[in-house]
This record gives sequence, structure tokens and C-alpha cells, in this order.
Amino acid sequence: MEFLDHYQETVAKAIEKYTFKNKPAELYEPMNYIISHGGKRLRPIMVLMANDLFGGNTEKAIKPALAIEYFHNFTLIHDDIMDEAPLRRNKPTIHTIHGINIGILSGDALLIKAYQFFEDLEPELFKKCVKIFSETGAVLCEGQQMDVNFETDNNVTYDDYIQMITNKTGVLSAASFKIGALIAGASDQDAEALYNFGKHIGIAFQIMDDYLDVYGDMEQFGKRQAGDIYENKKTVLYLLALEQATEEERAELKYWYSKKIDNVDKVHSVINIFRRTKIDEKVLRLIQKHNEIGQDYLNKINLPEEKKRPFIELANYLLRRES
Amino acid sequence: MEFLDHYQETVAKAIEKYTFKNKPAELYEPMNYIISHGGKRLRPIMVLMANDLFGGNTEKAIKPALAIEYFHNFTLIHDDIMDEAPLRRNKPTIHTIHGINIGILSGDALLIKAYQFFEDLEPELFKKCVKIFSETGAVLCEGQQMDVNFETDNNVTYDDYIQMITNKTGVLSAASFKIGALIAGASDQDAEALYNFGKHIGIAFQIMDDYLDVYGDMEQFGKRQAGDIYENKKTVLYLLALEQATEEERAELKYWYSKKIDNVDKVHSVINIFRRTKIDEKVLRLIQKHNEIGQDYLNKINLPEEKKRPFIELANYLLRRES
Repeated sequence: MEFLDHYQETVAKAIEKYTFKNKPAELYEPMNYIISHGGKRLRPIMVLMANDLFGGNTEKAIKPALAIEYFHNFTLIHDDIMDEAPLRRNKPTIHTIHGINIGILSGDALLIKAYQFFEDLEPELFKKCVKIFSETGAVLCEGQQMDVNFETDNNVTYDDYIQMITNKTGVLSAASFKIGALIAGASDQDAEALYNFGKHIGIAFQIMDDYLDVYGDMEQFGKRQAGDIYENKKTVLYLLALEQATEEERAELKYWYSKKIDNVDKVHSVINIFRRTKIDEKVLRLIQKHNEIGQDYLNKINLPEEKKRPFIELANYLLRRES
Repeated sequence: MEFLDHYQETVAKAIEKYTFKNKPAELYEPMNYIISHGGKRLRPIMVLMANDLFGGNTEKAIKPALAIEYFHNFTLIHDDIMDEAPLRRNKPTIHTIHGINIGILSGDALLIKAYQFFEDLEPELFKKCVKIFSETGAVLCEGQQMDVNFETDNNVTYDDYIQMITNKTGVLSAASFKIGALIAGASDQDAEALYNFGKHIGIAFQIMDDYLDVYGDMEQFGKRQAGDIYENKKTVLYLLALEQATEEERAELKYWYSKKIDNVDKVHSVINIFRRTKIDEKVLRLIQKHNEIGQDYLNKINLPEEKKRPFIELANYLLRRES
């Protein structure tokens, strides 16, 4: 994706430029460490793409774009503590190197720094963006807690699940687009349309994640095939299967998901039920549905198709990955 | 302090009114739990006092006042995890009841909710207040990390220490006063004067804390006499003594502070050096100095003495405590 490269370079340069030089280094170095490790920078790129779509100035949007990236990295630092994750992007996590205390505190400081990166905006726009930012942050925390609750809640429904992934992922892509649009001076209506485009693409992306866990090319994916099944994760596949299955199959599914066993029989049995209930096709249709809802929102924006093409390319890039 | 009672009641009512009813409860209940446990509510009271001083409307200042209280409680939740503290205000800490993960996440959410409590302000004022709020939050994180660094840094100076307590405590009182003043429409100059009043009273208060650890009435204080000496804490007493002591005394002080021993001899020896270097008098003079600097800033505000009296009463209340 050539246009992504261009944006990635812009973001990388800005991250370099705004490297934290504050003291004490024990607090700020871990922040620089996680931010410099990269990732695809999708969220700040979404800010810049939306800003470009409405003819905005990159200079004005770049610090808010970094705010979103900082926010994302703040969640990673704290999530890694909560998940006791030793590695992130193949590097040791902050709490692994510096301990939990520095992990908590540098995450906190990074969230606050993120807020400060909106401060170059004029008051009206500052308030609009910061409101979206806070709302998104609160909803993300809620999604994170819902995800934790689902581990021990045996009554999770498919709708609950969609709500959770919307909160955990959808709203941040959505907010990134909306903030970029508003900074460029887009109307509230257009900004909202782009918000909903981002939300549904985000949902589709998360569902694809569940799909690929079972049906993806694991070698490319770098994960264990059907890891979610081994871990009894209530994915969209499992929840849809529960709804579609016969009484007997439902009992079988619940039986396997009540066992903490590392057993190939389990995976085969579960995937068999997925096949009988045609979960793979249904989930692909679901991804397609959210993609289409997203495109419909994009169509509401009254701009030449040519200008909107990068958004469709981005959606395709996110949803057509092999793994 | 009768006028404090009145403000405390206002804050208590507001806290009750704005109890979080959001879902999931697992995230929001711990927030309500810590906020409802009280404490003196000094920081939101400072917002309201400053707002009253400049003839502001309490209705307008109350949610920002709660924002400061939420922020304070966010720091308490995370600090308690970092300190592995089992109790706070005689109740089990959040991470003790719900685990570290809920502690981290509900702290994060409370910080974000704090930001949202400024959203009723008009854009200009919103931006001013949120900028102060973020700056204060960042400085507080820095102060917290400095405090941690000091534990293992043997070259801490008295000046470093004053910087650390300014960051950790002074700026939050200062910001509380300034935000209250700005909401009431005070000039930037007056708001800044009140900021500096709050900062120096905060510094004086923290120094008093160190003083009382050794010279306070411990029964009333509910702490172990000279606990800071047992724990080798580099308090203002220790750092001033190091500067004032003879070569021999300095060596003795360093000797005792290099030992992790629970030894009455140690405490006697250290207190003896404190007496010989007249640290008690010097520290009391230092408290008095910061109190006076604070009063000088208060005097710069061109309002009748009568209206400023509560601020002097508050300073006296904070600094004349027996323990």
C-alpha cells in the first residue's frame, strides 16, 4: 500500500521530532521506548487521511494524530501489565524491563501527554476533539472490562460481543477519523459519517481476527492455529455457533469450552460444529456486512470518489489480509 | 473550621449526585468506592473557595471541583498499587479487594472521567482549565517518579527534595485554586497569585509532614514515631542536616541511613544530630518562610482582607496541626 508508506513516514518523522526529552528519564524513556517500536501506525494515519480528505493542513493535524498514537500506546502499556505479557512487537514489555510501578506510571503520564497534544488547536476545536478523545477513552476502558468479564460470564451473547469489540477497537478508529475530519473543518455530519465508517471497519477487522484464528494461514500469522479454541475464548465464531447449533451441538460446545485442556480432539470437535453450522461462511458474511455498512457511510460524504478511494483501499487492506 | 464544614457538605452532596451509574459495574463501582470514602476534600474545596473569592457561581465550579477530587483519587488508586498498600482511610484498597488489573483500569477510567467533568465549561475556559489540569497531572507523575528515584539516589539535595514535593503536592493545591479563580472570571494575574499561594502552602504542608514524623504527637498522628528515620527516608530534616552537619556528623548520618535496621540507637543518634544542627528550628523557619511567601502572593490580590480571611484560616489549619 504505497499511500500508507507515505503516511507512515510522516508519522515516523513526527514521532522522532516529538521524542520526549522531559525529566525524570525513568518516567519518559519507557514512553519513548514503546512509541518508537512502531506497529502500523494505523490510528494516526486515520487522523491524517481524514484531514486530507477534507483538505486540511497536515501541520495542524499531526500533533492530534500523535495524541491518538500515544493514547493507543498508553493502553498497550497497561494492557501488557494486566495480561502479564512478556513481549510486545517482539520486544520485552515495559513492566518486564522496569517493573510494574514504572509501567503504571509511564502509562498514566503518556495518557496525560496525549491530552496535551491537542493544545495547539483553537479553543472551539480543542474542546470538540478533547470531548471525543475522553469519550473514546472511557468507552475503551469499558470495553476492556467487558472483555475481562466475558471470561467468566457464561451468558455472553453475540450482541454483547459486538458491543465489546466496538468499545475495545471500533471507537478508536472511528474517533481517529472524526478528529482528523473536524481539524480539517469538515461539517459535523461528514465527520460523523466518517466516524461510522471507521467504527464498522474496526468491527469487521476484529471479527476477521477471530476468523483468522481458526481459518487463517498460521505460518504467516505467527500464532498457534485455533489458539482461541484452546483458550476457550468466546469469539464471534463460538457465540454465533451457540446460537445456530442444535441442542446437542450446543451441549457439546459448552462441554469443550468448560474444559481447560490442550487437546487436539477438542479443537477438531469444535471446528466440526463450526463446519456443520456453517460458521465460516456466516462470519465472512458478517465481515462483509460491516464493511458494507462502512462503505454506505462513506458514500454519504459528498466528495469525488477519487478522493475517497484511499479509505476503500485501507478497508480492503485491513480486511483482505491472509492472516 | 466552620467554613470548611460548609464546603465539605457541598462537595459531599455533589459526589453523591454524580455517583457513577455507568456499566460495567466492575469498572465503575471501585471508583465510587474510593471516592465515597472521603478524606478532607481539601482540593475540591480549594476550587470552590477560589471561585467564591472572585464572586463565581458554585454551580459552574462544582463539576471542575469534582474533576480535581477524581484526579486525586485516581492517583491514590495507582499509588496504592505501587506501594502495595493494603489500607487507605482504614478501608481495604481497591487492588486488595479486586486485584491489580481492576485497580489499574478503574484508575485510568477515573482520570478520563475527571477530564470529562470540565466539559460544561465554554470552550475558552474549558481549554484554559484542561491545560492546567494536564500540566499538573504530568508534573505529578514526574514528582512521583522523582520520589521513587530518591530512594536509591545518594546524591539527593535539599533543592531536589523541594522540587519533588512541589511536583508531588504543591502543584495540585495550586492548580485547584487557579482553576476555581479562572472559572469565576478572575484575571490571569490574580489566578496566578492564588496558584502561587497554593503552591507554597502545599510545600509548607509537606515539610510539616516530615517535621511531625519526628517531633509530632504520635498518638494523635496514628503513626510510628520517627518512622521516616527507621525507613531511611530522605526527608527535609535529613537533607538539611546533611548540609549543616560537620564532616563527622555527616559520616554518622550516612552510616545510619545505609543500614536497614530497626534500631532505637539509630533513631536516637540521628535525632541527636538533628538537635546539634538545630534542624527542628530550621525546619520550622522553613515552613514559616513558605507560609509567608504564600501570604505575600495572597496580598497581591486586590480584594478586601475580609474576603481573603478563609485562605489564611485554611493555611493556619493546615500548618498548625499538632500532628
